[in-house]
Amino acid sequence: MPHSRLETFVTKKGFILLNGGITVKEALAHWKKVAKPTPVSHVVYVVDDSNRLVGAVELKDLLLDEPDKKLSSVMRADFPSIRLKAPISQAVSLAVEKEITEMAVVDDNGELVGMVFTDRLLDALNWMNTQNVYRLAGILRAREKVDLRLPSLVRGMYDRMVWLLFSVIVGVFVAGGILKHFETAIITVPAVTFFIPVLMGFGGNIGTQTSTVFVRMLSNKEAGVGRRLLKLLTADLITGGLLGIVLGLVTAVSSLLFFTDFRLALVLFISMMMISVVAILVGFMIPYLSHKKGWDPAIVSAPVVTSIKDVLALLIYFLFIRLLL
Amino acid sequence: MPHSRLETFVTKKGFILLNGGITVKEALAHWKKVAKPTPVSHVVYVVDDSNRLVGAVELKDLLLDEPDKKLSSVMRADFPSIRLKAPISQAVSLAVEKEITEMAVVDDNGELVGMVFTDRLLDALNWMNTQNVYRLAGILRAREKVDLRLPSLVRGMYDRMVWLLFSVIVGVFVAGGILKHFETAIITVPAVTFFIPVLMGFGGNIGTQTSTVFVRMLSNKEAGVGRRLLKLLTADLITGGLLGIVLGLVTAVSSLLFFTDFRLALVLFISMMMISVVAILVGFMIPYLSHKKGWDPAIVSAPVVTSIKDVLALLIYFLFIRLLL
Repeated sequence: MPHSRLETFVTKKGFILLNGGITVKEALAHWKKVAKPTPVSHVVYVVDDSNRLVGAVELKDLLLDEPDKKLSSVMRADFPSIRLKAPISQAVSLAVEKEITEMAVVDDNGELVGMVFTDRLLDALNWMNTQNVYRLAGILRAREKVDLRLPSLVRGMYDRMVWLLFSVIVGVFVAGGILKHFETAIITVPAVTFFIPVLMGFGGNIGTQTSTVFVRMLSNKEAGVGRRLLKLLTADLITGGLLGIVLGLVTAVSSLLFFTDFRLALVLFISMMMISVVAILVGFMIPYLSHKKGWDPAIVSAPVVTSIKDVLALLIYFLFIRLLL
Repeated sequence: MPHSRLETFVTKKGFILLNGGITVKEALAHWKKVAKPTPVSHVVYVVDDSNRLVGAVELKDLLLDEPDKKLSSVMRADFPSIRLKAPISQAVSLAVEKEITEMAVVDDNGELVGMVFTDRLLDALNWMNTQNVYRLAGILRAREKVDLRLPSLVRGMYDRMVWLLFSVIVGVFVAGGILKHFETAIITVPAVTFFIPVLMGFGGNIGTQTSTVFVRMLSNKEAGVGRRLLKLLTADLITGGLLGIVLGLVTAVSSLLFFTDFRLALVLFISMMMISVVAILVGFMIPYLSHKKGWDPAIVSAPVVTSIKDVLALLIYFLFIRLLL
């Protein structure tokens, strides 16, 4: 989509570029001449003789500074700039951190190519977030328009189908295959069947929670993400262990209301604990590995995490059934 | 959280307020006096005698307009302003639509209380989106800090537990209850068990996709949301019907590889179609009803949609088993 790159949001006119050698007075005069017929930014960008961006002066500084000083001596040399190829999230961080409403955009040689206003970034961020939310739900892309004509409906179907088809195939061949493998256990103790939905649901939900947190963190590419990652994983695993104990107890005790089978209750309790920890590990590993591979964590995670934890939850449950029942 | 309201992002100083009766020259002189010692916005807000906001003049207009004109005659009377109590999303739409990097904030009486810069809105939007993504995963709130101390871990556990507990209880008592009710079918034809994961997963995934789309739409409170809603629902139901047919066929044909039971294949095909349409209706109804009730669609939808469609998928499947098998 055109929206996903910073480039789309760069304005290439409406700003003034001046050489650092001229004076404040000259700059102001030039500004007035240009600004009269066309709307321009209130920031004047300062370049050196080879046209590389060296700083910027705000219009208010031109008004308040001494008229005879050179631009290069009154400009802010640290005026925030960003590379044209930078991700939008980096432009957002820069604007928030430096508290600016516009920033200079430079190419790889440091030459000014334009600027980005924060209102365009708001637009970009909104779009990006819609895309991310859609991807978490396994929809390939958000479309701008709703359209009831056939080609549009087919495209919309394709956007949703890819991941649904994947999960149906995993569901039939892997989850179904596991259940077929443990057929005798099901026939011997049909009660085990009744807890398949709750165990699969639990694994799925807790795994999704974890992957959501990590996808968000990795997409934002926060500074110092490495150390935070380990800390967050540790916190998540402890939380997950506790959740597994509490919800495992709830499930085990509830099962006794249906079937007074203490060994089944024990299997449920242990399975819930194991599923919790394993689902959290999967919920972490998948976004982490996609990030390392340079793939967008959001597009890979939700579908894959959901399918893997479905299968693992079943496997864990039936392994404990075989061991303990 | 303090972050969720526009109020938090309003700047109450650093801007200049002038009466519309003074001249451009006087305004510029005043601006220079104030701007010298403290940083101020490049927009001058214009108020009437009862201090109500009537317009604004940009610094560049003060420089370019005739010095003897009155502010009230050179100001933009339509300078964008927003009510203090407006949702952040509305401020974002305003900034994007009007292409502005700051806006005036007024109270219910039209008195200026401050302004919002778009870099603060970027911060707000980023935070809001993180909250929304977390809520979709059934996490009550995003916390700023990761902390390995016990009180923090317990709070993090609570944030995730509420919805997990809800889904565990629904899973045991409702989904488990349904399976117990259809116990004889399971004992008679154990093959039906093998397709429980794929049917529940399918209902869940397709329902989540739909609710994601509608939650996003309703949260953004787009203009003309009513007509778009109906159109999107129609498109979604057609798409869902088609997806149900295609994936129902995939499931039915695959089932024949495990069990050469044509009636089971027919049950699977019809169930998938029904589940698809019902899951989409639920995925639409829940966010729509929470929106109507004035609740945040994102906080209610994911957990409730997932649980309801789990239960409905099972019910639909076993009803067709009873009817056709």
